[in-house]
Amino acid sequence: MKEYKIIEVKRSVFADNDADAARLREELKEEGTFLLNLMSSPGAGKTTLLKRTIALLKDELNIGVMEADIDSEVDAQAIAAEGVRAIQIHTGGMCHLDADMTRQGLKEFGTQDLDLVVLENVGNLVCPAEFDTGSTKNAMILSVPEGDDKPLKYPLMFTVCDVVLINKCDTLGVFDDFDKDAVKERIRKLNPNAEVFYVSAKTGEGFDGWIEWLRGQIQAYRQ
Amino acid sequence: MKEYKIIEVKRSVFADNDADAARLREELKEEGTFLLNLMSSPGAGKTTLLKRTIALLKDELNIGVMEADIDSEVDAQAIAAEGVRAIQIHTGGMCHLDADMTRQGLKEFGTQDLDLVVLENVGNLVCPAEFDTGSTKNAMILSVPEGDDKPLKYPLMFTVCDVVLINKCDTLGVFDDFDKDAVKERIRKLNPNAEVFYVSAKTGEGFDGWIEWLRGQIQAYRQ
Repeated sequence: MKEYKIIEVKRSVFADNDADAARLREELKEEGTFLLNLMSSPGAGKTTLLKRTIALLKDELNIGVMEADIDSEVDAQAIAAEGVRAIQIHTGGMCHLDADMTRQGLKEFGTQDLDLVVLENVGNLVCPAEFDTGSTKNAMILSVPEGDDKPLKYPLMFTVCDVVLINKCDTLGVFDDFDKDAVKERIRKLNPNAEVFYVSAKTGEGFDGWIEWLRGQIQAYRQ
Repeated sequence: MKEYKIIEVKRSVFADNDADAARLREELKEEGTFLLNLMSSPGAGKTTLLKRTIALLKDELNIGVMEADIDSEVDAQAIAAEGVRAIQIHTGGMCHLDADMTRQGLKEFGTQDLDLVVLENVGNLVCPAEFDTGSTKNAMILSVPEGDDKPLKYPLMFTVCDVVLINKCDTLGVFDDFDKDAVKERIRKLNPNAEVFYVSAKTGEGFDGWIEWLRGQIQAYRQ
């Protein structure tokens, strides 16, 4: 028996996604549910990072995860195995989620008892950056193997993020042309307020800073 | 002085992209220009792979490269440095190229004396798969750090490709959970005709098979 639902979301009927996202943000604020929109390229390590994050926070917070994918349910399976509530959202081929698609998922999910919902967006550095999901905060993962030039090529993604997690930092010895200082400078130039953490979801390196940041954001939100 | 142009392409005015792509394919066939559409996630190694491919073929073929990106011109710079003709296409935020956008680039470029034009599409596994660019053949790169589950999550991309290059295979020792057989089986299930090559654009491993395949495709096309 499956421990997660699969939801097929429909394209939004709202012309003004920004206004709809603002409404969703208010609804979530009233409930006290913090929605984290997690974005990255395919294969940057969203699910692995999320599994470790859940393990470190699940004793203090009620957590739910919405996995958005074009197809498959491998991520929801992996998250459900961590013992938190998960649903799989299928976007019907769409390359991103907008606020109404996010709301459809949240509604099916039932979020009133949840402190933190993570939306694992479709793996894509272009389209998800263009659509406000109604999230409380936006996080993105850039993985070391992708290279340090990504802020130059996908500037909007780096601009809309509150936090950038540079993942797979255990492979910096292998990808030795990755310039840690240059990438941070490129991110700061686009988005001076973005927090940047070097982490490895595989080894746990750097998670102290990231978890402390996330915990602080959730505490501030609920006050 | 720059050795490449930057073209800002406009969204297509044609409602039927498939018909337009078929027209473009005929136009290129008349000219004898082979158009390779190269797709992948951000950071899978398109430019590095292309540089090595150019070095191996530029003595026997006239090659041009169209670099499509949301922003920046780092790729066109890198390709122009290889001594082949390059242009940078800016998509104005769009996540893919369609046939008419490709035609706009080709027109600016001037392709009559070129045997092979490579279109380096926007780094994205979703949208470029949905739009026929008019290319002669489609190639995609899956890099080992992205993981072996990508055919499950982005099935359309693997379905539309004539060849899949599994790049960064020099890092299989680091990413030791990447299952070489499983990924091949997942690709074949979606697309039994796809050629699959393991390559490393960094070390040159596996390039014999890829270059031989590409050379054979171009020869067959021109007969």
